[in-house]
Amino acid sequence: MIKVGIDAIHYHVPKLMLPIASLAEARGIEYAKLNKGLGLEAMSVCDAQEDVATMAAEAAYKLIKEQGLAPQEIDRIYLGTESALDAAKPTAAYILGILEAKLEPEFGARCLRNCDVVDLTFACIGGVDALLNSADYIRLRPQSKALVIAADKAQYDLASTGEYTQGAGAVAMLMTANPRILKLDMDFGVATKSEHDFFKPRRNFTKTEVLRETAKLLGQELKDEDLENLWQSSHYPFWHSGGNNLELFREEPVFDGPYSNDCYKARTSEALDHLSRKQAELDVLEDWSYLVFHLPYAFQARRMFVDMWFARLSSDARQSLASELEIGASELNAPSGDTMKRIAKSNLYRQFIAEAIAPGEKASSLIGNMYTASIFMSFLSLLEGLRLNESSAQGKNIGFIAYGSGSKSKVFSGSIQEHWQQGMPAANVFETLAQRQEISFKEYVDLHQGRLKKNLAPSEGLTLEGISTELNQEGYRIYS
Amino acid sequence: MIKVGIDAIHYHVPKLMLPIASLAEARGIEYAKLNKGLGLEAMSVCDAQEDVATMAAEAAYKLIKEQGLAPQEIDRIYLGTESALDAAKPTAAYILGILEAKLEPEFGARCLRNCDVVDLTFACIGGVDALLNSADYIRLRPQSKALVIAADKAQYDLASTGEYTQGAGAVAMLMTANPRILKLDMDFGVATKSEHDFFKPRRNFTKTEVLRETAKLLGQELKDEDLENLWQSSHYPFWHSGGNNLELFREEPVFDGPYSNDCYKARTSEALDHLSRKQAELDVLEDWSYLVFHLPYAFQARRMFVDMWFARLSSDARQSLASELEIGASELNAPSGDTMKRIAKSNLYRQFIAEAIAPGEKASSLIGNMYTASIFMSFLSLLEGLRLNESSAQGKNIGFIAYGSGSKSKVFSGSIQEHWQQGMPAANVFETLAQRQEISFKEYVDLHQGRLKKNLAPSEGLTLEGISTELNQEGYRIYS
Repeated sequence: MIKVGIDAIHYHVPKLMLPIASLAEARGIEYAKLNKGLGLEAMSVCDAQEDVATMAAEAAYKLIKEQGLAPQEIDRIYLGTESALDAAKPTAAYILGILEAKLEPEFGARCLRNCDVVDLTFACIGGVDALLNSADYIRLRPQSKALVIAADKAQYDLASTGEYTQGAGAVAMLMTANPRILKLDMDFGVATKSEHDFFKPRRNFTKTEVLRETAKLLGQELKDEDLENLWQSSHYPFWHSGGNNLELFREEPVFDGPYSNDCYKARTSEALDHLSRKQAELDVLEDWSYLVFHLPYAFQARRMFVDMWFARLSSDARQSLASELEIGASELNAPSGDTMKRIAKSNLYRQFIAEAIAPGEKASSLIGNMYTASIFMSFLSLLEGLRLNESSAQGKNIGFIAYGSGSKSKVFSGSIQEHWQQGMPAANVFETLAQRQEISFKEYVDLHQGRLKKNLAPSEGLTLEGISTELNQEGYRIYS
Repeated sequence: MIKVGIDAIHYHVPKLMLPIASLAEARGIEYAKLNKGLGLEAMSVCDAQEDVATMAAEAAYKLIKEQGLAPQEIDRIYLGTESALDAAKPTAAYILGILEAKLEPEFGARCLRNCDVVDLTFACIGGVDALLNSADYIRLRPQSKALVIAADKAQYDLASTGEYTQGAGAVAMLMTANPRILKLDMDFGVATKSEHDFFKPRRNFTKTEVLRETAKLLGQELKDEDLENLWQSSHYPFWHSGGNNLELFREEPVFDGPYSNDCYKARTSEALDHLSRKQAELDVLEDWSYLVFHLPYAFQARRMFVDMWFARLSSDARQSLASELEIGASELNAPSGDTMKRIAKSNLYRQFIAEAIAPGEKASSLIGNMYTASIFMSFLSLLEGLRLNESSAQGKNIGFIAYGSGSKSKVFSGSIQEHWQQGMPAANVFETLAQRQEISFKEYVDLHQGRLKKNLAPSEGLTLEGISTELNQEGYRIYS
């Protein structure tokens, strides 16, 4: 069967960044805990007029321009996101509109007229679903080109335990037959279970209740009947529209970190097992030179993977581990919790981390969590490391271990192709990241709370100009 | 290439229905305008504990049970919806959880453990995206089975011009190789343009502004600084969480009916043209025995399609039309608006409607708009009509014309297979619909405004039991 996979890749992260040291200081958290413990160095922060649509469109535009693509050739733009801007209109349609406006001078009006676009939603794994479905699309139509974008803004409550893992950005990938960067294998493993480890629900109130509490705040006590009559009499849109229910949208998730970590580990392990049942000959540690993970924080994978690594060690490697740690065979067959902790700190596992996992962590340390885009930025981080080291990467296999809360894991693989460097961003990723504008903690809080209306960074790129208040258009987002 | 398509189909609509006559009377709208003009007879109304997850799970469960499926055989459940219950956790994961709980007695725990699930969002066309991607999945893996579900609750503002088009329900389809009902053709036409004809935005307020207006409602005038200090001091979650921004979620869309009708017509026409460019030999009116449309209201397609029908008439048919209407060739080559109105009322077009379009409208008349599920319910409506008439349907081609606001159209086709009746619901669709429980206008309004907490209909099926208020789980939906 024809080779199908990732032909080219580009990305966009906000120009603004907050050093984790600034956040740690302001929150009274020991910096070493975040830096040495979790691998965090800086977080990308969306500017005031930046959102997932502008970030995704920037990434796609850079890909189109640097690779000299004709937009008319692009059959589909599939977006993975959990930061959708609307509940019915896909963010991918906003992106198409922004791209068409930007490309119009060169390519004429509606250059993406026959492009199929849609959003896929499953927490942090929707981008992988977009990728694997688009690979199938190309396998059946080898002349076609598809654009897959993963874009998100990972925003948590101020001062919550998720705050220091925040980040934002987008990765865009061109999928073709005979791809230059990565051939994707067709088999994948998958595991799913309905969980509440991390989600973005509506917050439910009633108008009567909110009005009662607000009256109290203003020093008034009213009866329920009077409260209901009062809000029903108001012409102010907040009170006027709809019935008694008030549903708040909040960008910030409801989550339980340790529980989500358990779900991540359980699902990825089950998905790996699923793939291993499909491919009896698969030897994950031997066959895959690099592992690329969804990284909610930089060191998530290295902390979580040790059990799966240990379970898959060859008998030779187990003997090396036994002699390094001076452990007997029986203890190694059923290791205690303490022994597993020693194994996690063994030279053998550290060496595995350094070779197979660490290259994919570097971008995450500098950006933070990008939700759906995280695994693809990790892939790009690995590629940039290979480019810098002038390694001979061609033919090496990469295992991808994806996770989305709620919960699902997918495990799939691919091999690096001969002309992989041609499909990469022209500029060095880490140099570009080093040129970001550092913001103060106060600026960060103002941006988080939506108190700024204009960009802090000098605006060169795509911006959200405003949100319509016109009749029959209220809430529509206007970009330039 | 192997045949791939729809092997079996089932559906769920709420047990409750409101006659359009009741709504027309209460709103002072002439009933004939809604009934004769738009084709409306009744609307499905979600019960108090019914939502898209319960409706989708009911449809899938009926499909699994009636067809005797082993859930472990189902590789994927892809959901098209624009009524997602959460912004990160897909509604498909809720559905998987509900189905696993329901199937556990027979099939054991986690019978869908290795099932790939995800939500696809593009207004009313996300279900078609789920269908066509799943068809590709099966083409490459002919041993696999996929479940595609389209489920939505179409709720508009009370007394708005969308109110009488409301509806709700779900359709579930099993996709396989060598399908019993419909073989899908691989080519499709697509057209996309970013539009604001219908969308579901967040409604943006600031806490300071809402508190100012609420204070006014309570007879108090406060300074902005005092307002901000006041809400910041509150521990009530509504005021306490987040910054100054308040984003309201509303089920009801922002829309512009006539503009959306224009977008529907423009996109479907462009998508038909796109398919015709791919298949030069395609003669839509000759090759397709039936047309199945997305129907925002029952008569949308017959009202909208006349231009496209007229443009594709054979020269013989044009001559028949000319003689029926006593129009000369020159007028027929460039018909005036008045002529087009006469053409729309011609016997020739009426006959086309009766044969090709009307069979798909009947369910819509009885249910209302089902958003993503509408086109599939229309397909089922056609099949039920064929079953009742004992028509020899095998081998007949169907053209599907899908539309999603925001805006995208896809046009695709398929042919009815020999054993199509085996894949259908056991009970007659229209008899089942006739057994629904009629509700009063007051009950309808109470349900619309979320004032009822318990189901009105005797509860036999799946229900939303409540929404969690526990720490780290607030907003999580609990089903039984």
